[in-house]
Amino acid sequence: MIDQNEIIGLIAAVCTTLAFIPQVIKVWKTKQTMDLSLRMYSIMFIGILLWLVYGIRIDSLSIILANVVTAILVGTILVYIIKGKQ
Amino acid sequence: MIDQNEIIGLIAAVCTTLAFIPQVIKVWKTKQTMDLSLRMYSIMFIGILLWLVYGIRIDSLSIILANVVTAILVGTILVYIIKGKQ
Repeated sequence: MIDQNEIIGLIAAVCTTLAFIPQVIKVWKTKQTMDLSLRMYSIMFIGILLWLVYGIRIDSLSIILANVVTAILVGTILVYIIKGKQ
Repeated sequence: MIDQNEIIGLIAAVCTTLAFIPQVIKVWKTKQTMDLSLRMYSIMFIGILLWLVYGIRIDSLSIILANVVTAILVGTILVYIIKGKQ
């Protein structure tokens, strides 16, 4: 049985992972990224890739899964920001 | 001694926490938040508060510290977005 703390942690992880979805939808619809920080998304992307490496090394499926999803979402926003700068 | 995996995890945590700083600086300087998703920052803020609850319950100082810092950064961006909508 999963204890109460792990349920809170799981909901927390779902929130901080899926939070990027509305931002992806917004940039995809508007193509406007002027107010988004390229530095933020670059550092975030590097951090998520490191979380992924960490997850693989300690063999944690939940860390791997959460960070694959977040990497795709943050990576998409990053591509739109870079495209918008050109 | 801290093992190599924990060093990777630590750098990952620093990146995904401090990534929000350039975005805070950007909204503070420009006061422009039109392209930022209110939904993203609302869900993210709730997620971080839940991480904080999780950290307190499992008594993890690093989870508590990281999420206090992130809550302040994300909370600041959220306030600017809400102000910008008024």
